[in-house]
Amino acid sequence: MLFRQLFDSESSTYTYLLADGRTRQALLIDPVHEQVERDLNLLKELDLTLEYVLDTHVHADHVTAAGLLRQRTGARVVASHRGAPCVDVKVHHGDVLALGALRVEVLETPGHTDDSVSYRIGKRVFTGDALLVRSAGRTDFQNGDAGHLFDSITGVLFKLPDDTEVYPAHDYNGHTQSSIAEEKRYNTRAAHREREAFVQLMGNLNLPPPKKLNEAVPANLACGVISPTQTSSPQA
Amino acid sequence: MLFRQLFDSESSTYTYLLADGRTRQALLIDPVHEQVERDLNLLKELDLTLEYVLDTHVHADHVTAAGLLRQRTGARVVASHRGAPCVDVKVHHGDVLALGALRVEVLETPGHTDDSVSYRIGKRVFTGDALLVRSAGRTDFQNGDAGHLFDSITGVLFKLPDDTEVYPAHDYNGHTQSSIAEEKRYNTRAAHREREAFVQLMGNLNLPPPKKLNEAVPANLACGVISPTQTSSPQA
Repeated sequence: MLFRQLFDSESSTYTYLLADGRTRQALLIDPVHEQVERDLNLLKELDLTLEYVLDTHVHADHVTAAGLLRQRTGARVVASHRGAPCVDVKVHHGDVLALGALRVEVLETPGHTDDSVSYRIGKRVFTGDALLVRSAGRTDFQNGDAGHLFDSITGVLFKLPDDTEVYPAHDYNGHTQSSIAEEKRYNTRAAHREREAFVQLMGNLNLPPPKKLNEAVPANLACGVISPTQTSSPQA
Repeated sequence: MLFRQLFDSESSTYTYLLADGRTRQALLIDPVHEQVERDLNLLKELDLTLEYVLDTHVHADHVTAAGLLRQRTGARVVASHRGAPCVDVKVHHGDVLALGALRVEVLETPGHTDDSVSYRIGKRVFTGDALLVRSAGRTDFQNGDAGHLFDSITGVLFKLPDDTEVYPAHDYNGHTQSSIAEEKRYNTRAAHREREAFVQLMGNLNLPPPKKLNEAVPANLACGVISPTQTSSPQA
């Protein structure tokens, strides 16, 4: 299996490329609109065919490249059945996508947003904003719910084997990965905390809104491909 | 073996943590001064003992954390015999450092600077600024020499097995790794280019000096631990 982690420094977003080294079939998780040429070039250089683009949720901090990549490559866009209407493959908890020898297991992990899913592929889990390195995504917009996030983290992700490698959608401190064992011990929001205390903590974060919220969410509901007319209508 | 890639966003520097999972002995490659608390905290959380700090060269774009880490942990600082006088273990081409089950092979790869070395550990090679993803370090200061860099890249690094994973000291486009096979095909400076053409290309880059050059080089000659008096004297 081929694995690459990619970074968008403006939004601190991690994009992941995985592929079957034999069939050369590839998928991208959480690609960023501004990096589409970089990612297409890498696919070409590595002689890979993009089959799937997986978003972990409707992002509020960057615009997805999913729709653009679909236009350019014919790849199918995969995301939660609770998310963007533009998605081709609307997945549910327990679904398994096959890509060559790869198996992508869908884990619904709502709470940061109601459509948040994680993707488990072999020993790795891609957690979006549900579980970050030593942290967890905020829950104060897009139908976020701190109680649901606590249940997703402790009831779904922390039940994975301890040595599962955790790859988040973002990091702001230069970490590239973690493990389930580490997060169970050291996650500053969820480790050693009861549900009620977690909900209280998340309710008191008082964070400013993401800079791109009003641009990114409507764009991402259209998989990042939206005409100027469409952009204005969700704000009206 | 435990492996972690870490990033300093201000200088776009990658730091690498490797450890023997059984003995818990660890090494850090190219740690950054400003990230010393993050890195010490991660070592503690992962229950690791830092034995070695390896610098690939005397950096000009950030201050090394080597000296600070030596003070805080007793780790020994490793770098080229051609580099900083503060180093504890001055290595030569072909030297092998043992750390538990890990074997660190030293490859002298001068050209970006005259003291540049790469470290090969298992299937990975840590190339400093000699070989970057699709690029190569500049050669216009610190005794840089484009001809030597060409020889290091094509005569040393490109002789490694094709599937060797390449981990550079920097990336500015969100790439986290490459492979020898890819760089032999797609490196924009060294692939499919003769020595003379490479020297000409590197001589015409016309880059501005690194922002931290006058601060970082004298500091790094003292392993990043330098008093205010010392800082001023190399500039006098």
